[in-house]
Amino acid sequence: MLFNEIVEHLKKGQSGVVDFKIKNNPIILSAASLEKAKRNDITFLDNNSQLSLRNLIKTSEAYALLLPANDNYIVELSKKLEVDWILLKDPKIAFAETLEFLYPSEIEIEGIHESAVIGENVKIGPGVSIGANVFIGDNTEIGAGTIIHAGVAIYKKVTIGAKNIVHANSVIHSGSKLGNECVINANAVIGGEGFGFVPTSNGWKKMPQVGIVILKDKVEIGSGSTVDRPAVGETIIGEDTKIDNLVQIGHGVTIGKGCAIAAQVGIAGGVKIGNGVILAGQVGVSNKVIVGDRVIASSKSGITSNIDSGKVVSGFPAIPNKLWLRCSANFKKLPDIAKAIRELDRRSFR
Amino acid sequence: MLFNEIVEHLKKGQSGVVDFKIKNNPIILSAASLEKAKRNDITFLDNNSQLSLRNLIKTSEAYALLLPANDNYIVELSKKLEVDWILLKDPKIAFAETLEFLYPSEIEIEGIHESAVIGENVKIGPGVSIGANVFIGDNTEIGAGTIIHAGVAIYKKVTIGAKNIVHANSVIHSGSKLGNECVINANAVIGGEGFGFVPTSNGWKKMPQVGIVILKDKVEIGSGSTVDRPAVGETIIGEDTKIDNLVQIGHGVTIGKGCAIAAQVGIAGGVKIGNGVILAGQVGVSNKVIVGDRVIASSKSGITSNIDSGKVVSGFPAIPNKLWLRCSANFKKLPDIAKAIRELDRRSFR
Amino acid sequence: MLFNEIVEHLKKGQSGVVDFKIKNNPIILSAASLEKAKRNDITFLDNNSQLSLRNLIKTSEAYALLLPANDNYIVELSKKLEVDWILLKDPKIAFAETLEFLYPSEIEIEGIHESAVIGENVKIGPGVSIGANVFIGDNTEIGAGTIIHAGVAIYKKVTIGAKNIVHANSVIHSGSKLGNECVINANAVIGGEGFGFVPTSNGWKKMPQVGIVILKDKVEIGSGSTVDRPAVGETIIGEDTKIDNLVQIGHGVTIGKGCAIAAQVGIAGGVKIGNGVILAGQVGVSNKVIVGDRVIASSKSGITSNIDSGKVVSGFPAIPNKLWLRCSANFKKLPDIAKAIRELDRRSFR
Repeated sequence: MLFNEIVEHLKKGQSGVVDFKIKNNPIILSAASLEKAKRNDITFLDNNSQLSLRNLIKTSEAYALLLPANDNYIVELSKKLEVDWILLKDPKIAFAETLEFLYPSEIEIEGIHESAVIGENVKIGPGVSIGANVFIGDNTEIGAGTIIHAGVAIYKKVTIGAKNIVHANSVIHSGSKLGNECVINANAVIGGEGFGFVPTSNGWKKMPQVGIVILKDKVEIGSGSTVDRPAVGETIIGEDTKIDNLVQIGHGVTIGKGCAIAAQVGIAGGVKIGNGVILAGQVGVSNKVIVGDRVIASSKSGITSNIDSGKVVSGFPAIPNKLWLRCSANFKKLPDIAKAIRELDRRSFR
Repeated sequence: MLFNEIVEHLKKGQSGVVDFKIKNNPIILSAASLEKAKRNDITFLDNNSQLSLRNLIKTSEAYALLLPANDNYIVELSKKLEVDWILLKDPKIAFAETLEFLYPSEIEIEGIHESAVIGENVKIGPGVSIGANVFIGDNTEIGAGTIIHAGVAIYKKVTIGAKNIVHANSVIHSGSKLGNECVINANAVIGGEGFGFVPTSNGWKKMPQVGIVILKDKVEIGSGSTVDRPAVGETIIGEDTKIDNLVQIGHGVTIGKGCAIAAQVGIAGGVKIGNGVILAGQVGVSNKVIVGDRVIASSKSGITSNIDSGKVVSGFPAIPNKLWLRCSANFKKLPDIAKAIRELDRRSFR
Repeated sequence: MLFNEIVEHLKKGQSGVVDFKIKNNPIILSAASLEKAKRNDITFLDNNSQLSLRNLIKTSEAYALLLPANDNYIVELSKKLEVDWILLKDPKIAFAETLEFLYPSEIEIEGIHESAVIGENVKIGPGVSIGANVFIGDNTEIGAGTIIHAGVAIYKKVTIGAKNIVHANSVIHSGSKLGNECVINANAVIGGEGFGFVPTSNGWKKMPQVGIVILKDKVEIGSGSTVDRPAVGETIIGEDTKIDNLVQIGHGVTIGKGCAIAAQVGIAGGVKIGNGVILAGQVGVSNKVIVGDRVIASSKSGITSNIDSGKVVSGFPAIPNKLWLRCSANFKKLPDIAKAIRELDRRSFR
């Protein structure tokens, strides 16, 4: 692909082309990170990168660069570069659009494989692909263009919309409803029974879990993640919310739109999470807690009580991030603090 | 279903019917939480609920209520309610029994699917259901009434008792022994090899893992959870112990009866856990630690040394819960504490 | 098997036979831990065991003992024992070699099962075993002697070397490259797409993940663990690195040789980890952090910034282990510290 083709592609996209230089118009064969880019590669420098990374553009072997237009140092530097470049409002979006253009996704499977086992009264839309050894239970519906990879097990009465991708060996339980353009990664489990047991004098009494899981449009669920169904009602994950690997979503949880939930987060039963929330890796959220819109929780936080919209929290139990940073800094000084107190005690009147 | 049928059903159960009012004797079509219940729903108020929740029974649209008999406020309130109700010793158990009655579990699969691959000398009891694309290795035994869902892989020489449910795409390794009435949720792995490697001058030497995993009766294992087999001997999970999703049980662990282990808990090799222990989400237990009966560990605790029976612990390393609560409260004040010491130092004699 | 056969076997191994006594030359039928060993068992005492464990050798019913040669107390004790024994430089390695000898691993599957679905242009080496309901995508290569268990799904263009074991229902995505003698445990996912989303005014823009995962020789991946592929370039796990269950390895991570990574560790995108690193259970490592060679992080640590080679760290954020131990000890005293400050304040001049 020639560099000017990429320029034309990006002009039609969302990254905001501000300026560009086509001089060598090189053939671009692949894309790479700035640290690893070689000849015939295109690469990018993100907005607000560190100086050490920004200086790499002087020495990079890459044939073409996607650069931040809002960075005066880079804009000046670009004038002296031999290679071709594009200045952009958002070079990272440009890189994403370039990857889509350079590496168009190929259809991995086509049609319905003869080894797939499909139940009674299953409705399959046009252009659906179903891989080898898939099982689909009775009365399930699969919308147009959805791709079900090998070994997936879908129970009865599941509704799956259009253009979903369900990766290998994942499991979708009865009654689950998926919107459109969702991605279920490999070995994820959607709609497993919630963890509900009531203590009795004869041991645990199981609370039947007759609710369902609803994933709205453009939800993505990471590999090995689990989303439980509740006793009654629904577990709901809002539109465009992205969930990483090995995340646990408990029964009856409601998550809003546009959230990002990193790997190994655990969200206990009945939690309500607003829109645009970001939970970093290994965060935990306790039963029935309410987390407001746009809350950010840093990694390993434990959210044990309600958090107002817009807050940034850290630690366990989670407290405001700035306070936590100061507390953590002092935690490291605890031996000194204890020593200072002994010293003060010695010096003070008794 | 008519309300009086539910009353009669609960009288035969474990929830302790104390009083009831059949006035409208409504048709009950479904069940819901108190916050979401609508007409034709039955709902419940648990013992010791918060006032805000208790007041919802005044305005709920539900046609029938399961209420706590030991709550005088509610008992008084119930006299003025238009709708039908039941007063119970344990409304949550009543709700569980009502769900069982309203939503009888349907048999999801029947018989042995033709696509299942069954090895040599496999013993299959009466009434066993085996789903599509299941694999069962040689010399495995499956007891009466057990249900094996689609895509499950069972290795050789596994013994599975009666009335177990094994959900889709879970894996059970060679030699594992399951009792009766266990539930293995989707994508769980029972009997994988323990993580045992001995350092040598030539790198890691693998310790062969020739032990087995034993699950006693009524054990439940959550979706994506893993229970490892040991080098020698057994990993044992006691009767009626319930394990949530994405839990790791290391090699050679022994867990007693009636425990509840929440999502993403990790239990390292050789740990011994007593009866009736409750571990909340994301708890970790270190190698070979002994945890006594009825210990409760709150979420994210890290148990690094033995805990006596009956203790409630929190934090990392885990300490008594009440102490931890006071320490955590002071952690938030560490910047103030540091400032107070500087101030005292300034004021004191030098 | 006779005891003297084990002696001869160990002489050829790595455990360093220093002395032995063949008196009864018993028949050894099985192996067990020192606590549980019975007649006809062989057992071992590891170097540097606790006294309570060391004293068990006086009363053990085991017919044969593998004992530490560098422990004078044990050497003296061994002279008085009735049973046969071997003194060794490394009794744990001896026990591993004994288990291999006593319990030779049987071939679980042989040949290519007729239910396996194999794509076009798949190259399968000599002696490969492929289990029931396996799916292998087009243009994939599988090296000599590799065993693929039931239900495994391998996408297109995967390269798998010789003598690997891939356990049931695991998933290997397109383009992944495995070396030789790797073990992929059940329900693991290799090469799933990295969690890369760029915020835009229209919601999350997906960063295409066109990179691959490379596992070098002798890598082991635990049950349910996930190793993501990056946007560009490679996620690489070095030779002889062992990864336990439910571990998350983010996109673009590089891990060196001979590391051991315990269960439920989470490693965020772009992290670089050196050789011989040990991460204990539930550790987290933040985005793009660099961890030097031979670093040890104790359980639940959160590594948020670069760590120099050879360091031992603990806590969150991770600090030197010895400092952390002192800080933790003082954390428990925080209520006392706060009280002491109030007391000093009362006593001091104002």
